[in-house]
Amino acid sequence: MKLHLLNRYLLTTPNLIPIIKLRASLFSTYASKHEGPVSMIQGASRGIGLEFVKQLLERSSREHVVATCRNPDEAKGLTDLKNKFAERLHIQRLDLTVESTIEDSAKAIRERYDYLNLLVNASGILSIPDILQPETTLTKVERSSLLLAYDVNAVGPILVTKHMWPLLKVGGGTGTERDVAVVANISARVGSIGDNHLGGWHSYRASKTALNQLTKCVAVELARKKDPVICILLHPGTVDTDLSRPFQKNVPKDKLFTKEFSVQKLLSIIESSKRHDNGKFFAWDGQQIPW
Amino acid sequence: MKLHLLNRYLLTTPNLIPIIKLRASLFSTYASKHEGPVSMIQGASRGIGLEFVKQLLERSSREHVVATCRNPDEAKGLTDLKNKFAERLHIQRLDLTVESTIEDSAKAIRERYDYLNLLVNASGILSIPDILQPETTLTKVERSSLLLAYDVNAVGPILVTKHMWPLLKVGGGTGTERDVAVVANISARVGSIGDNHLGGWHSYRASKTALNQLTKCVAVELARKKDPVICILLHPGTVDTDLSRPFQKNVPKDKLFTKEFSVQKLLSIIESSKRHDNGKFFAWDGQQIPW
Ligand SMILES: NC(=O)c1ccc[n+]([C@@H]2O[C@H](COP(=O)([O-])OP(=O)(O)OC[C@H]3O[C@@H](n4cnc5c(N)ncnc54)[C@H](OP(=O)(O)O)[C@@H]3O)[C@@H](O)[C@H]2O)c1
Ligand SMILES: NC(=O)c1ccc[n+]([C@@H]2O[C@H](COP(=O)([O-])OP(=O)(O)OC[C@H]3O[C@@H](n4cnc5c(N)ncnc54)[C@H](OP(=O)(O)O)[C@@H]3O)[C@@H](O)[C@H]2O)c1
Repeated sequence: MKLHLLNRYLLTTPNLIPIIKLRASLFSTYASKHEGPVSMIQGASRGIGLEFVKQLLERSSREHVVATCRNPDEAKGLTDLKNKFAERLHIQRLDLTVESTIEDSAKAIRERYDYLNLLVNASGILSIPDILQPETTLTKVERSSLLLAYDVNAVGPILVTKHMWPLLKVGGGTGTERDVAVVANISARVGSIGDNHLGGWHSYRASKTALNQLTKCVAVELARKKDPVICILLHPGTVDTDLSRPFQKNVPKDKLFTKEFSVQKLLSIIESSKRHDNGKFFAWDGQQIPW
Repeated sequence: MKLHLLNRYLLTTPNLIPIIKLRASLFSTYASKHEGPVSMIQGASRGIGLEFVKQLLERSSREHVVATCRNPDEAKGLTDLKNKFAERLHIQRLDLTVESTIEDSAKAIRERYDYLNLLVNASGILSIPDILQPETTLTKVERSSLLLAYDVNAVGPILVTKHMWPLLKVGGGTGTERDVAVVANISARVGSIGDNHLGGWHSYRASKTALNQLTKCVAVELARKKDPVICILLHPGTVDTDLSRPFQKNVPKDKLFTKEFSVQKLLSIIESSKRHDNGKFFAWDGQQIPW
């Protein structure tokens, strides 16, 4: 029996979970399709997502990364990394608003790796010329903007989590030393209701607040089912990317992070996260953010 | 100059707000189209919304109510009230998912009354046979359900608030003794992230959480502009209506409120609310609910 099939069997069989811990020693001769850490970065064409891919590939020669984006042919940053890291990087087309591309991605990962140790939902939209503009007042709030931001920022990441769940369950205990796989959803401090003292940005704020609630729902279910998976929310700080560029004018220089710095911080939070962090919302510096 | 036109003028003129307080005494001879309290109940065909209409009309013979619903011809409860309260009840067609019906409602109210003292967004969806089912697990979460619940429960009330804002600004200080008009958005305790210990109901929960954030955005802007309007969020308790009926099995009898009881409680919170309550989230018993 292959390692990953055994994992699947054990996970569907109650009260056998302690036996999983024996797995590595007992069945180490049964090789899976793949050994070693496998991470999926969703929203990897640019910005914070692309930087996650880079740092993960650089930190260990055993690490494999599935990087998803809407248009692989146009994702120059990913193509450059592919040239350097060859088969350790797998680029997969995924558009959050087309659920079949999420299902296809899950299928491709299952065929190639059979498990996931980490899923980072790094995609996000704040403004799109002529389509989406962060609202400065209630009078500018439009139904189409609210629905679009919700679709991409809240619905999409939760559908990805749904389809990757079976792979993450196998990944909790396989491929790394960690006993849990991690889902890290990139939220934003402006999604906090308690911390909202400025107002505005209705569509973006509400979509991130909803992402926080949806992630909490998932975390509660993972804990109840005793799945070897945890789900956390991360605020990257204000980071110098395409997303923040139109709004950087009033950001003090020392408050505008490079993506290198932010992703280092976020990766160290992910690496040190434990079961009791399931469902929590952390800023780049490890501080918890109120809902 | 008519009373309401003066109000409008004062509200667009900065630093003149204290003068508003002189209005009643100085200009009491200039009659508006209407005198006395005017409330709008959005989502008034059934349940909690219909009960709001009834209690408002019963409590004072000066009170006028604009009751909105998707299908006035089928709203039996409203027709019965219309027969009893005649011109004190104005029934208006409004479908939250069709913004033009919200604009038309604002226009009709402006022509008839010129101001609003209270707006209650009482509509809401949790389950619709064959279309929307509260999710018991992540695997049942669908994009269409998430978007539908968001559209009706979060987007709709905020668009109504946007279009009624000018009428509410006039209503803060006109028609009642109160110096502020009130927007009361009916949310739900399950929209609280901090209070989410059970998970599930992803679409409904996330839509109410987003409604909370959107309402907070509006409250912050109202306060900054020193508008005579406040915006609050209310949880009605578990109330015996069509919405809760399929889920009442496990509700202890003393925890299942009649709509009469719940609306009495909610109306007394609305009546006693002050400027410092702007942006807060109250349960039926006046307790604040965490975000
Ligand atoms: N930068 C900041 O200051 C900041 C602050 C707080 C939170 N965040 C959050 O951090 C995350 C990353 O942001 P960023 O600054 O790296 O932004 P970015 O540079 O603008 O990158 C956004 C990414 O999202 C992807 N995306 C957009 N729509 C998509 C869709 N429908 N399907 C799949 N992918 C889609 C984009 O892909 P395409 O290339 O195909 O458009 C791109 O890869 C976001 O969730 C953002 O909200 C950023
Ligand atoms: N009952 C509870 O236990 C409970 C608990 C917590 C929170 N709440 C909240 O309390 C509020 C009232 O709920 P309820 O119990 O009175 O529910 P209800 O009896 O099912 O009534 C729901 C109302 O919403 C209206 N509505 C639905 N979709 C609409 C749309 N697209 N446009 C305009 N109106 C629409 C319905 O109109 P139609 O007749 O046209 O369908 C109906 O008037 C909701 O916001 C609900 O989420 C209820």
